Amino acid sequence: MIAEPLQKMIEEFSKFPGIGRKSAQRLALYLFRTGETDFEKFLEAVFSLKRDLKSCTVCFNITEGEICSICSSPKRDKSILCIVEEASDILHIERANEFRGVYHVLGGVLQPIRGIYKDQLRIAELHKRLTEGVITEVILALNPDTEGDTTTLLLVQELDKYQLKISRLARGLPIGGDLEFSDEATISRAMSGRIIVR
Amino acid sequence: MIAEPLQKMIEEFSKFPGIGRKSAQRLALYLFRTGETDFEKFLEAVFSLKRDLKSCTVCFNITEGEICSICSSPKRDKSILCIVEEASDILHIERANEFRGVYHVLGGVLQPIRGIYKDQLRIAELHKRLTEGVITEVILALNPDTEGDTTTLLLVQELDKYQLKISRLARGLPIGGDLEFSDEATISRAMSGRIIVR
Repeated sequence: MIAEPLQKMIEEFSKFPGIGRKSAQRLALYLFRTGETDFEKFLEAVFSLKRDLKSCTVCFNITEGEICSICSSPKRDKSILCIVEEASDILHIERANEFRGVYHVLGGVLQPIRGIYKDQLRIAELHKRLTEGVITEVILALNPDTEGDTTTLLLVQELDKYQLKISRLARGLPIGGDLEFSDEATISRAMSGRIIVR
Repeated sequence: MIAEPLQKMIEEFSKFPGIGRKSAQRLALYLFRTGETDFEKFLEAVFSLKRDLKSCTVCFNITEGEICSICSSPKRDKSILCIVEEASDILHIERANEFRGVYHVLGGVLQPIRGIYKDQLRIAELHKRLTEGVITEVILALNPDTEGDTTTLLLVQELDKYQLKISRLARGLPIGGDLEFSDEATISRAMSGRIIVR
C-alpha cells in the first residue's frame, strides 16, 4: 500500500548502518517533506561527498586534497603513529583530543571467513612508512574484538624488525559506565588489568 | 580536522529526525564508501522521491497517481473514515492490518504557539467529504499528546452536525510492554480505563 518511490527510498535507507525499517521510514518521509532549498542543500552535500573527497596518499584518511589536514599539520608529531582499521576511527580518536601524532588507516582487519587476508590490508604501505625512519612509536588502536585482536598480533609480528615503542589501547570499564551494565568480559578485563593505587 | 564535504554531509544527516551527531557521521561515512552502483541506486531513489510522489486528491495520503491505492481500492470500506495527523501515520496504522476503511490526513494538529490554527488543517476538505453522505463512522487517530487531544476535541465539535459514529483510539499499556518501564500517565490511563473481565 506504500507508493513505490517511497518504498524504494525506505529500502535504500534501510541499507545504512544502524537504520532499521522504522527509522528508514522516518528518514524517507522527512526527505519527502523537505522544502526545495533544504532538499537542494542535501543533494549538493551528497554530490560533493562523492566528487570532492579522496584518500590521503600518506595515511589513507579521508581528505579533500592529496594529503590530509593531519599529515600536513606542522603541529602533529610525525614520530608517533596510530594504526586504525578505518578512516572513520580517526574521527572517533580525534574527538577525544588526546592524541597528537599521525595515523595509518589499515583499511580493515583480518577476516579469513570473508576473504580478507593480510594482503588486502595496507601493510606494505605501513612498512614503506616505517623504513623512512621518522616513526619511533606505534599505537595499535584496532577495535577490541576478535578480528581486531588477531590483527594486532599480526602487526606486532610485522613490526618486530623495527626499533619501535609499541602499545595498544587500554581495556577496562568505560568512563561514565556502570558495573551493573558492563558485560562479563569487560569486568574481567578491568579486574585483571587493575591499576594499583597505593 | 574533518574534511569539509564530509562535515557538510554529517550536518545534513543531523537534520533528519532521530539522527544524532554520531549516527549522522556513520551515515555519511557509509554513503562515502558505497560503490558506484549502490550510490546510483541511492541517488535515483532520492530523485524519484521528489519527482514521482504527490498528495492523494481525496485523502492527502502520499501517492504516485492522482488518487492513492487505499482510496481507489474496491476492498476498502468507504463508509469508515480514520482521521490522522500526517500521511506517515497511515503507514503505521496500515502495518497493524486492522483497519479496512479509508483515511483523511489532517496535515498537522493545533499548535497555536507555532502559528498552526484550525485554518491550516484540512478541516474544510473534511467537511466536503462528510457532506457527500457516504461516511457513517469516524475514528479519530491523532497522537496521544496534548496537541492531539486538543485537536480531537475540536474535531468532535466540528463533526457534531453530522449523523456519525465517532470514536478515538484506546489508551493503555502497550502490548509487549512492561509495567516497570511504563510512565505514570500511561499506567494511570490504563487503570482508569480498565476492562472488566468478569
